[in-house]
Amino acid sequence: MNSIFHRTSIRRYTEQKVEDEKITQILKAAMAAPSAGNQQPWEFYVVTKKETIEELAKTSPYAGFTKNAPLIIVPCYRTREDQLRFKDYAEIDLSIATEHILLEADALGLGSTWCGIAPLPDRMDAVAAVLGTDESLRPFAIVAIGYPAEEKKQQDRYDESRIHRI
Amino acid sequence: MNSIFHRTSIRRYTEQKVEDEKITQILKAAMAAPSAGNQQPWEFYVVTKKETIEELAKTSPYAGFTKNAPLIIVPCYRTREDQLRFKDYAEIDLSIATEHILLEADALGLGSTWCGIAPLPDRMDAVAAVLGTDESLRPFAIVAIGYPAEEKKQQDRYDESRIHRI
Repeated sequence: MNSIFHRTSIRRYTEQKVEDEKITQILKAAMAAPSAGNQQPWEFYVVTKKETIEELAKTSPYAGFTKNAPLIIVPCYRTREDQLRFKDYAEIDLSIATEHILLEADALGLGSTWCGIAPLPDRMDAVAAVLGTDESLRPFAIVAIGYPAEEKKQQDRYDESRIHRI
Repeated sequence: MNSIFHRTSIRRYTEQKVEDEKITQILKAAMAAPSAGNQQPWEFYVVTKKETIEELAKTSPYAGFTKNAPLIIVPCYRTREDQLRFKDYAEIDLSIATEHILLEADALGLGSTWCGIAPLPDRMDAVAAVLGTDESLRPFAIVAIGYPAEEKKQQDRYDESRIHRI
């Protein structure tokens, strides 16, 4: 099964904890991502503490549902010039790593949803305040993960009219 | 085999053409990507014409090798306000769709490399000039694809020190 054609945004989770081995496997997938000049600008907050999850759920108008997730991962990117080769590409690099998290979660039988934080400074600041990070590490997204308590089929979005052959 | 842990940037290709069915499958993977509010801001230029590929190869200092690729896909994003719900997220959406292209190419036995274009306006303009697109559709990346003429193993980038458990 190819997770690209299987995964969809799962927003309801059972109470089952996500096993440590699965969390590690998800983080391995994230760090397997390509990045501009291989700069690997990422760090990851792995949040399982209930109170912190509830605080994160308040940082975006769309993140409310994440308060019931047993696991949240917050991919962040470094901003220090001496740690980055291509600063302009940090958010693209993080997008790839974050999508790997979603795909690997699906492959492991988990459901997940990506709540957008970057590039909106207000949301990034709100998440940074919860995590206690300073300007050198910027929160990129909130990814809620857990065992699915809902079944959803992926929508078929293929649209030939979006393709130009030259 | 999971392409997340297999793919790597392949920059040398055989002369074998990429079959139409595989191109379609790759585009299906791209359009299976999630996007902010499901806005699907993407369009795709599928380039197989030798002269156009050679022109694209000149648009970035890192794209020279793409002149020998049998296939280039240029994912682009729409910019018109009436076609987008969340304009700020267009480049993140395109990052996900582009990574799906790389992963699906790998799953089909192809090699590929992502040459960064966005968010750098000069490179985006140079690619737009080759494609003949106006401001309503912005080139996001150049993805070179072909049958691999080199063998490379994925680097192990897993780094426990990038993880913060809270």
